[in-house]
Amino acid sequence: MIRIDVELGARGYPIFIGQGLLADHSLLGRAVKTQQVMLVTNERVGPLYAGAIETAFQDRQLCRVTLPDGEAYKTLDSLSLIMTALLQNRFERGCTVVALGGGVVGDVAGFAAACYQRGVSFVQLPTTLLAQVDSAVGGKTAVNHPLGKNMIGAFHQPVAVVADLATLTTLDEREFRAGLAEVIKYGLLRDREFFDWLESNLDSLLAREVGALTHAVRRSCENKASVVGADEQESGERALLNLGHTFGHAIENVLGYGVWLHGEAVAAGLCMAAQISTLLGNIAPTTHDRIVQLVERAGLPTAAPEAASASALLAAMSVDKKNRGGRIRLVLLDAIGHASLREDYPHAALLEVLQPGAPPSGVATASGPPPA
Amino acid sequence: MIRIDVELGARGYPIFIGQGLLADHSLLGRAVKTQQVMLVTNERVGPLYAGAIETAFQDRQLCRVTLPDGEAYKTLDSLSLIMTALLQNRFERGCTVVALGGGVVGDVAGFAAACYQRGVSFVQLPTTLLAQVDSAVGGKTAVNHPLGKNMIGAFHQPVAVVADLATLTTLDEREFRAGLAEVIKYGLLRDREFFDWLESNLDSLLAREVGALTHAVRRSCENKASVVGADEQESGERALLNLGHTFGHAIENVLGYGVWLHGEAVAAGLCMAAQISTLLGNIAPTTHDRIVQLVERAGLPTAAPEAASASALLAAMSVDKKNRGGRIRLVLLDAIGHASLREDYPHAALLEVLQPGAPPSGVATASGPPPA
Repeated sequence: MIRIDVELGARGYPIFIGQGLLADHSLLGRAVKTQQVMLVTNERVGPLYAGAIETAFQDRQLCRVTLPDGEAYKTLDSLSLIMTALLQNRFERGCTVVALGGGVVGDVAGFAAACYQRGVSFVQLPTTLLAQVDSAVGGKTAVNHPLGKNMIGAFHQPVAVVADLATLTTLDEREFRAGLAEVIKYGLLRDREFFDWLESNLDSLLAREVGALTHAVRRSCENKASVVGADEQESGERALLNLGHTFGHAIENVLGYGVWLHGEAVAAGLCMAAQISTLLGNIAPTTHDRIVQLVERAGLPTAAPEAASASALLAAMSVDKKNRGGRIRLVLLDAIGHASLREDYPHAALLEVLQPGAPPSGVATASGPPPA
Repeated sequence: MIRIDVELGARGYPIFIGQGLLADHSLLGRAVKTQQVMLVTNERVGPLYAGAIETAFQDRQLCRVTLPDGEAYKTLDSLSLIMTALLQNRFERGCTVVALGGGVVGDVAGFAAACYQRGVSFVQLPTTLLAQVDSAVGGKTAVNHPLGKNMIGAFHQPVAVVADLATLTTLDEREFRAGLAEVIKYGLLRDREFFDWLESNLDSLLAREVGALTHAVRRSCENKASVVGADEQESGERALLNLGHTFGHAIENVLGYGVWLHGEAVAAGLCMAAQISTLLGNIAPTTHDRIVQLVERAGLPTAAPEAASASALLAAMSVDKKNRGGRIRLVLLDAIGHASLREDYPHAALLEVLQPGAPPSGVATASGPPPA
């Protein structure tokens, strides 16, 4: 078992990574310290793992809330459902909300933990690659609003994250590949060596070999923990973790939440960020091509969907949380392994990248397979 | 103008108290530091004061959200309404939400500020006595859930509180008297001298004489600021500010939010807390009588409504945020000016206090006029 610590003083916590951790009653018992435990999961993950969790906590007061599966349910209504369960079962301030599932479950359960009685303990048991490498770490919780993704939320750190790699073996192919977008993101934005490793080991990763999975989750969590420890509330460096997300969130919003998976939209966003970085002369066309090829090999889209018009994407991007003074701020690449937050790009370059199906001048054409 | 500082380090802020402050453009301009201003008010207060605020900020981007009036609208739906307005108007993280109104407006607008994009600036312009002396100070924000009051919320401090005493002159009589419950609370729980002053000056206060109003608001805010500065997130002393509220919240919940005003329910709760304190022998019957008489002179109820059964009140109290291990914790009096959080009281004493219309043994009968 690997342990990585998120260094946040009194709000610091461990991330445990390993095979079969959800069956480790002793570990779960130490991660969840309270008598009252509210397990939040979804209808896909619950039947697979909730029983084991309930066994681990049979000496506690455990209740379960099962949300429908998918980004379309990351809403205030789902929040309200969790609140009702907490109140109906007389849960007190000294309780723990436990998220068992992917990014949607973690985000909405975490926001419930942040708000219930103005804040209760929270534990993340991520069961998707995307949640294990990204969303379960760092304390960002939120629900969506029809007008913008993650617009209603809170910073609320978990007290522990337990990432059981065994859950990744049952993950369906589309979900697994979506998680790779966030893995690739870390290499691109701050870890050139990891990007090189991904180029060399993508096939092992796609085959879900334990060694490759372990390294990918570990290195991603180390990167995330380092950034979050330095800038918990995103006053600086943490914004760089949004590489690909300004475009990605706009794609999700324009298509409707859940049509593309979050990771699929981020994958296209990474390629769009690479494209505009190339147009600005920040990275070479060959660098752009390496990025697009890796995303493509991961079976992920490399461009925005035809159904999303440039004007619709631009409108959706105008409510991004990074924006200041009406200006859309983008995380752009200066090299593989180095990114920066920019607002000094020409608007024309952004418009060019947003044109559906228009390959950028000077870079290779790339259009990923649309998700199933 | 009086200035009181809430000492919370980087989250500290000033409370300004005085006559005509909402017409002081310079003060408002300093309190609200951002270009984008979302004014949240209700349909009763908005027509009276929102125009003046909008004039003060005519060089900013100001939008207004008007909620219906009353506790029944302190809901997730109202939160959602504010979020929609923020997003439709492209409000960024660097915006300010300004609450203009009483406790309901302040609590829901504050929660919106806490959650929008995971937290934006917040300014309180309280226009009721209750909000000026209590709810606008201290950073507790929340909405109600059908199963419990203030169960969904956050700690989110304002950056400034501007309490214009002139707004109290137009406050209707019932609202004004409700605010007195919180004023009396401070005397009871930690300021014996203030309680004595209230006994001597209640008539001037009821006549809304400027000198009496100024002292009552100032002394209440000084007490609140002192407690919040020492215990922002209610790990200890701050729970004492809940004197009367465990009973009060239960009354509000059982009758339905808005049937009794919050302050009316708290007034009855103060008398119930005095009654159980007397039953336990912590305070003398004559002390109990002084408390009930002051509440009665303020025109406030001194007992739970007949319509609320003991069993219904008990059920509602079982979801109180102070409870631990299934035990209802109560703030009880040891003397006028001294309170403590207790769970070592006999259940029979609690049941006796909850019996509708049953005067306690050994203390004078007291039943306040039901609110209009």
